[in-house]
Amino acid sequence: MNLELPTALQGKKYKDAVNWFMPSPVPDGIGDLIVKNCEPPFESRIVFSGLDSSVAGEIEENFANAGYIVVSNSRNHRFDPDVPLLIPEVNSDHLKLLPIQKYGGAIVTNPNCSTIGMVMALKPLFDNFGLETVNVVTMQALSGAGYPGVSGLDSTDNVIPFISGEEEKLETEPLKILGKFNGSGIDLTDIKISASTNRVPVLDGHTESIQVKLKSKATKQDILRVWNEFSAEPQALALPFAPGRPIHYFTEDRYPQPRLHRNIDKGMATSVGRLRECNIFDYKFTVLSHNTVRGAAGGAILCAELMFKKGLV
Amino acid sequence: MNLELPTALQGKKYKDAVNWFMPSPVPDGIGDLIVKNCEPPFESRIVFSGLDSSVAGEIEENFANAGYIVVSNSRNHRFDPDVPLLIPEVNSDHLKLLPIQKYGGAIVTNPNCSTIGMVMALKPLFDNFGLETVNVVTMQALSGAGYPGVSGLDSTDNVIPFISGEEEKLETEPLKILGKFNGSGIDLTDIKISASTNRVPVLDGHTESIQVKLKSKATKQDILRVWNEFSAEPQALALPFAPGRPIHYFTEDRYPQPRLHRNIDKGMATSVGRLRECNIFDYKFTVLSHNTVRGAAGGAILCAELMFKKGLV
Amino acid sequence: MNLELPTALQGKKYKDAVNWFMPSPVPDGIGDLIVKNCEPPFESRIVFSGLDSSVAGEIEENFANAGYIVVSNSRNHRFDPDVPLLIPEVNSDHLKLLPIQKYGGAIVTNPNCSTIGMVMALKPLFDNFGLETVNVVTMQALSGAGYPGVSGLDSTDNVIPFISGEEEKLETEPLKILGKFNGSGIDLTDIKISASTNRVPVLDGHTESIQVKLKSKATKQDILRVWNEFSAEPQALALPFAPGRPIHYFTEDRYPQPRLHRNIDKGMATSVGRLRECNIFDYKFTVLSHNTVRGAAGGAILCAELMFKKGLV
Amino acid sequence: MNLELPTALQGKKYKDAVNWFMPSPVPDGIGDLIVKNCEPPFESRIVFSGLDSSVAGEIEENFANAGYIVVSNSRNHRFDPDVPLLIPEVNSDHLKLLPIQKYGGAIVTNPNCSTIGMVMALKPLFDNFGLETVNVVTMQALSGAGYPGVSGLDSTDNVIPFISGEEEKLETEPLKILGKFNGSGIDLTDIKISASTNRVPVLDGHTESIQVKLKSKATKQDILRVWNEFSAEPQALALPFAPGRPIHYFTEDRYPQPRLHRNIDKGMATSVGRLRECNIFDYKFTVLSHNTVRGAAGGAILCAELMFKKGLV
Repeated sequence: MNLELPTALQGKKYKDAVNWFMPSPVPDGIGDLIVKNCEPPFESRIVFSGLDSSVAGEIEENFANAGYIVVSNSRNHRFDPDVPLLIPEVNSDHLKLLPIQKYGGAIVTNPNCSTIGMVMALKPLFDNFGLETVNVVTMQALSGAGYPGVSGLDSTDNVIPFISGEEEKLETEPLKILGKFNGSGIDLTDIKISASTNRVPVLDGHTESIQVKLKSKATKQDILRVWNEFSAEPQALALPFAPGRPIHYFTEDRYPQPRLHRNIDKGMATSVGRLRECNIFDYKFTVLSHNTVRGAAGGAILCAELMFKKGLV
Repeated sequence: MNLELPTALQGKKYKDAVNWFMPSPVPDGIGDLIVKNCEPPFESRIVFSGLDSSVAGEIEENFANAGYIVVSNSRNHRFDPDVPLLIPEVNSDHLKLLPIQKYGGAIVTNPNCSTIGMVMALKPLFDNFGLETVNVVTMQALSGAGYPGVSGLDSTDNVIPFISGEEEKLETEPLKILGKFNGSGIDLTDIKISASTNRVPVLDGHTESIQVKLKSKATKQDILRVWNEFSAEPQALALPFAPGRPIHYFTEDRYPQPRLHRNIDKGMATSVGRLRECNIFDYKFTVLSHNTVRGAAGGAILCAELMFKKGLV
Repeated sequence: MNLELPTALQGKKYKDAVNWFMPSPVPDGIGDLIVKNCEPPFESRIVFSGLDSSVAGEIEENFANAGYIVVSNSRNHRFDPDVPLLIPEVNSDHLKLLPIQKYGGAIVTNPNCSTIGMVMALKPLFDNFGLETVNVVTMQALSGAGYPGVSGLDSTDNVIPFISGEEEKLETEPLKILGKFNGSGIDLTDIKISASTNRVPVLDGHTESIQVKLKSKATKQDILRVWNEFSAEPQALALPFAPGRPIHYFTEDRYPQPRLHRNIDKGMATSVGRLRECNIFDYKFTVLSHNTVRGAAGGAILCAELMFKKGLV
Repeated sequence: MNLELPTALQGKKYKDAVNWFMPSPVPDGIGDLIVKNCEPPFESRIVFSGLDSSVAGEIEENFANAGYIVVSNSRNHRFDPDVPLLIPEVNSDHLKLLPIQKYGGAIVTNPNCSTIGMVMALKPLFDNFGLETVNVVTMQALSGAGYPGVSGLDSTDNVIPFISGEEEKLETEPLKILGKFNGSGIDLTDIKISASTNRVPVLDGHTESIQVKLKSKATKQDILRVWNEFSAEPQALALPFAPGRPIHYFTEDRYPQPRLHRNIDKGMATSVGRLRECNIFDYKFTVLSHNTVRGAAGGAILCAELMFKKGLV
């Protein structure tokens, strides 16, 4: 595979190469950095990868082999047996896989953006009551498809009931994330998960209607309590990018809503609401999570902060 | 209760009283009709009611007592033991309740707009394979909330994960619609249904992610066959407002979509797509139905056409 | 230039080659047509061109040279001295250019989608009162940018105050359309036009705030009268695609609106409203026109119908 | 007029009385404040009024008579001869009207939300080159209509070409704001202004296409220079709510855009772009300003900060 930078970009300043469309201008000190080929050496020990999956696999391995810690949003290495699929609040012990990795450095992966919010809300239920089945129907934001992604002619006044590959990720990634480190790998957990994924006219923030069947009985109060009390290593270590509280529960029926609540706690918290009994499962509720902050860049930074604080970098 | 017309409207022409915002102007011959009190006598034998449920109950009874056939979109009489909750393609035999009614005329009700599309898609499965459980998560259009309904400040770039009273309707109405006429009333069927309802930025057309557990085995081909072959009394009688085919199945993964398909077959057909196996239930699929045409005015007209053709008016 | 069809498309049925996303399925008899290279011979005498301007010029000339009548939506030949820039209600006499053309066949062009609605509303003012200056600020629909066109991430909750090349078209095309055939070409008219173009989150229908300074005095009633009385050759010839009335004036302050009124009269009419005096110009008003129907495909068909009925095909 | 608080609200905590729908919860210390009748005494010297104009006039006078400084967003007193219509960067010298007011306290008014951004961009042109005529066509955000304001059924996929009373405000308010204090009142300036106002599907941020005819010649560079150099009393006094720079000029053709740039500089700056020559006027350009921050609450706070710092409170 040819991984060379297109000639047109080589040697350019970042601000001249980038297709920038953030609300604030390119930050000083960033815009003047020179774009270089995506190959070692880099002047850093951590490398963040948001590459397309068509090239991510090989490039990430090159950096890991060269001794770098690669934190990746791509799906290529998520199911490698020695690679953590990491949500810092959920399975930080999976970092024990790192010494097992064959690389001089390491690869750590961020789960899919629709997986993270769901698993964050499931984690306290899983730990306290066990999970037998999980059903999820998503209403996902446009930004999940990248830029330009979904045409305005498809997104306006519309729902698209299909996102390629997304249901498979939601049905499998939680099994590894909630799985158990067995000394040499991760034993997948055995929850039955069914996912139906839809694209809706929302800019950022994936909303998910979730239903769960628990292994042991729990009252509504029990569930609210474990959500409200939930706190994990990123909070204990006071990592700069960690949300103050990983889960924010709303008592108003009409909440959470993506436009109002996606940015709660720096966009890093999971919003939950509408907990109620279910005629088929035990309980149902709504989860909201920012897909490009918690679900991508912010999640990757938190992974890096966790590794740094634990002395793994 | 005071059911008098506000003084400001009495004696006005319809075109001067109405808050008209349809794409085409008020039709000739309609605009000059005089607005009158909502009480008998009316110069018709059928009366359509789209009244608010705060007044619909009493007004509809007054007309039924005065000998009129009332076709209602309101929820007030939907669960009266002697009132059909009618989808002409699904339970036209429930019209046998009419002779039992205590009125000189009769009341027939239209189900809730989110119920109709779902039950239309379920009917062939129910008849051929039996239904044990049905799970539905909706993404409902703004027009379902009436006008002005949802503020543009709430609907833009947003999802509202709650619609008051809607989940209860979706969980109970199908039990009566798919129930059996026992000579003097309707025996509810015993399907377990769970509904989660959401409002999305779509003008018209409710999209629903549905999952079903069948009583007997069926292959994907079996299901596609019974959907494609489904035809009922409105089609046999060639009722003017009946869709040519009640169910349109799409083979493209990304279909049906509300903006593209809500108007299929005069807005009276149910669009279905994405039939696939489910890890928890047997199958899952997507349903789309026009909520103000099939789900309200058009559905009511079809009920009236059915009764007329069957000599019940 | 290589104008060959990509190998992947050669010999395919249209329904298998097309990226179809219209509400109704590919019509019978159309879907089975075989896609062929874009070069003569074709089994028709009229050829419609919606080609990208990077290839339209040469292909259209090839067909015209081979004796075909080419009706084009592309900009390439719009300002050729012997090519009509045609709005059938406005300048059908410009078809007198056809005998002058160097081709065995002919090329006729459709103006830009934002020009057509404006010029339709200006024509009766131009004929009756003269026009000195015209100022226009547009709020244009997403479909004007083609598919996929504008990303949903750019169109949602946003206005884009720039459309490449659009202001130039609005400032120049009316000068030719309203120009005078002088026996061998078109004398441009001398109106001063200024255009500012914006993209707004609307699917179809360009809305335009227009201001005019007239050459001779006119009252508001004069203007309303010439708009309401306006009728032209397509109406006189009862062309199938012609709107019954080219201009629909709305007396309600809040009209016209793109979603409500873009489809008036088969999408072929121009909607106008809010005529009022102006502190700077003489009058200001709002114009709405369907950009892909009247502004493209429908407009091209009407051009062809006009030529056919006039015996030019 | 009865200005009593509805019984249902009297004595309630603010958090229980308010219809809160901001992204963050009611701030601590605010939610527990007790709602009281809108009449003196209040425990403050400055009173902010965002009252409906049906009641604002009398209530604001009551407070001013009781010695309070009233900063109002309502239109009632904007054209009182002794009341400043204040944009702190533009006409802070109009505060000299305060000693002339008949009240023990004072009333100061905030201009209309669509006026503020425009006048901010005009001010350096007015001071340096003079203004003869100003033409403005607006594309205004939904939040300008309040809550619930515009129905989602009207705002989706649509433009509404009318906002009641808005064009009059845009055509008259700048004449007072840019007017001259003559020792006892304000001499209106004599610019000819024409405004056309439209509502578009944008949550916050009014976009305006503006054209100007200057009294003296200026090059494009001259204009860019006076915009970039523009700074005023709020900047000199380093008022906490003042934008660092009142005017941000964008060189990219496609900017400013409301979703990207409305929050620049705390939402208090005016974004400007697309300066270019005009066929009718001298120049045209696009202005964007946050209508509920700079155009309402934030603007009022800045007025108060200015008066406080100048020792007028």
